[in-house]
Parts: sequence; structure tokens; C-alpha cells
Amino acid sequence: MEIRERIIEEATRQFLQYGIRNVTMDGIAEALGMSKRTVYEAFKDKSALVHQCIEILSQKHKCRNDEICSASQNVIETIFLYMQEGIKAMNAINPVFFRDMEKLYPKTWENLRKNNEKEGFNLSVELLQKGIKEGFFRSEINIPIVAKLFLEQMNLLADEKVFPRDEYNYTDVFQNLTINFMRGISTKNGIELIDTMLVK
Amino acid sequence: MEIRERIIEEATRQFLQYGIRNVTMDGIAEALGMSKRTVYEAFKDKSALVHQCIEILSQKHKCRNDEICSASQNVIETIFLYMQEGIKAMNAINPVFFRDMEKLYPKTWENLRKNNEKEGFNLSVELLQKGIKEGFFRSEINIPIVAKLFLEQMNLLADEKVFPRDEYNYTDVFQNLTINFMRGISTKNGIELIDTMLVK
Repeated sequence: MEIRERIIEEATRQFLQYGIRNVTMDGIAEALGMSKRTVYEAFKDKSALVHQCIEILSQKHKCRNDEICSASQNVIETIFLYMQEGIKAMNAINPVFFRDMEKLYPKTWENLRKNNEKEGFNLSVELLQKGIKEGFFRSEINIPIVAKLFLEQMNLLADEKVFPRDEYNYTDVFQNLTINFMRGISTKNGIELIDTMLVK
Repeated sequence: MEIRERIIEEATRQFLQYGIRNVTMDGIAEALGMSKRTVYEAFKDKSALVHQCIEILSQKHKCRNDEICSASQNVIETIFLYMQEGIKAMNAINPVFFRDMEKLYPKTWENLRKNNEKEGFNLSVELLQKGIKEGFFRSEINIPIVAKLFLEQMNLLADEKVFPRDEYNYTDVFQNLTINFMRGISTKNGIELIDTMLVK
């Protein structure tokens, strides 16, 4: 692996685990057994490193989404896989990371949020259309409204003020939200498939 | 009807229709064919009048909720009736009213919001428990999480930034949200009842 890649990998791991403020270029160099100079030659400062890590994370996230989409048999399975990925990711990320991003890099964070929202909306519309075609979702749902409602619920989920992690079990909230939401728009066949997958 | 009551009725009608800033004590007096002095004898200023109107509105709202609860045959019917009431109310209220309240009376607005949230949560928990007992809602749902999710969705609905009224048909959003949410937590019997009520 190239030096840049190794630094990005280690920095991302530390940022997600400890937040951004708590991580230093020194600490990253030390964890990798590199000199501080090597790290600074690859990235001129922490801000440049943070931006690169976010960029790579977004790319990986997109690739993973595509992988899930093509690996699953039907739309219900796709959403279950997304849910499992989401729960895993959110449980692995220290909420301090999100707070630091918002505070320290408000512009990057806002762009990321807007981008995710746009892509999330398009993906949701696609999944809803696919689900209707497959006979698992009811054809009478209003696709743009349902897609928007789903996205907004996902935002709620990530909002520490709405569901503080010390009060709510994140996995329970995520599952209650996603499963109930899916059942709500499903046909009889869809609900049967959901129930089968829940038993698994 | 007493003078105070007549003033409150007319003021409430004007506030909800035009917002608060756009309504004057003069205008209220004129609409009622009263002298300005009579209005000021009943309420020392517009702020006092606004607070009294909000108080009465809240009381009426609570009474109406109780009425609906006791008039309906089962929990699904109760929620349908709430939904119809909600749609009617929101379509009748000018969004400017909410914006004015938030801007001009932030403390009153915040108290009202907090109170509504607490009462809404308790009411939701009650309805969920009742629905499970009646066999219409699935017994495995996590009641506090589902109640909280429902309330938060209702807040989204009222948020002009999330669902701007010039872009979204309020009735469609409300119906998609409530019907899908109810179906999502329902048993087979519950879903059948919802479908029957939708045909009506």
C-alpha cells in the first residue's frame, strides 16, 4: 500500500473512533511508525488530510451501495442489507466525529449533507420503483413523498438531539424505523417476505 | 356570548387566517362592530389577547381529542379521525401564523411545543397499547421508540423547510405518512381494517 493510502486508512480509523479534534498528525505518524515529516510531506496539514479521508469514505460508501444493490435478490433484501450496513456503521462511529465535522468543517459538512440528500433521494425513488415493479411495494404510494419521508426519518435517526444515544438503543431505533416503514408501503407479498427475512 | 368570548373567537379566526403581525386590535374591533375601547377594556394589549386565544385553542384541541377518542370504535378509526382533523386544521391555518408565533412569542411557542410533545407522546403510547390489545397492532413493536418516531414525523410535517407547502400537497403528505405508518405497525387484521376504511 502506498504511504498516502496508509495514512488515509489510519487517519480515517482514528477520526471515526475518537472524533477529529482528539486526533493529531503526530498520533497518526506514531501509530504508523512513520516520522511526522513523512506524514506532512503527504498532507500539508490536518485539514487537507480530513478532506481526503471524507472524499475516500464517500467513494467507498457509494461503491458499497452499488455492491449491495447488485448482490441482492430483490428490493426487500437490498433494504435489509442497507439497514445492517447502516447499523454497523453508526455503531462504529463515535458521535463526536459528526459534531466535530459540523463545528470544524461546516462547509464540507454541509456539502456532504446536501450531496447525500440528493443521492439518497434518487436511490430511494429507484428502490421504490423497483419494489413496485417486483410486486413487493404497493403501486398506489406517492413515490416522491414516500422517498422524502424516508430520508427525513434517516436524518432524525442521526440527530443526537432527537434520539440521544445514551437514552435509545440505536439498533432498535433503526430496525423499528426501517422495518415498520417497509411494511407500511408493502403489499401482502412484501410483508410475507419481510417476515421471512426477520426470522432468519 | 360574552364580549370577551366574541373577541377571542374573532381574533383567533383572524390570527389563524392572516398571521399575527397582520392583525390589529382596530381590525378586530371593526369586524365585531365594537369600539376600540371595548376591545382594550377586555384585553390590555394584543399580546394579552394572543395568549388568551392560544390558551383557548389548546383547551379546545384537547376536548376535541377526547371526543374523537370516545366516539371511535377502535384505534384505527381513532387515528383516521385524528388524521382528518389534522389535515382540516393544517389546511385552514396560514403558515404565517406559525412563523409569527415563533418570532413574536418565542417563549409561549416553545412552551406550547414542549407541552404538545409531552401530551403527544403520552397519547401515542396509549393508542399503541390500545391497538395491541385490540389485536390491530403487532405486539412486538417497541412502544416508546415507535411513539417517538411518530411524533417526530408529525413535527417534520409541520416544518415548512422540510415540506414547503408550495411544493407538496399537505393532504397527500399527511395521508402517506399516517397510513403507511399505521400499516407498518399493524397485524393482518389491522391492515385489512385500514384498507376497508380507505375505500370508504
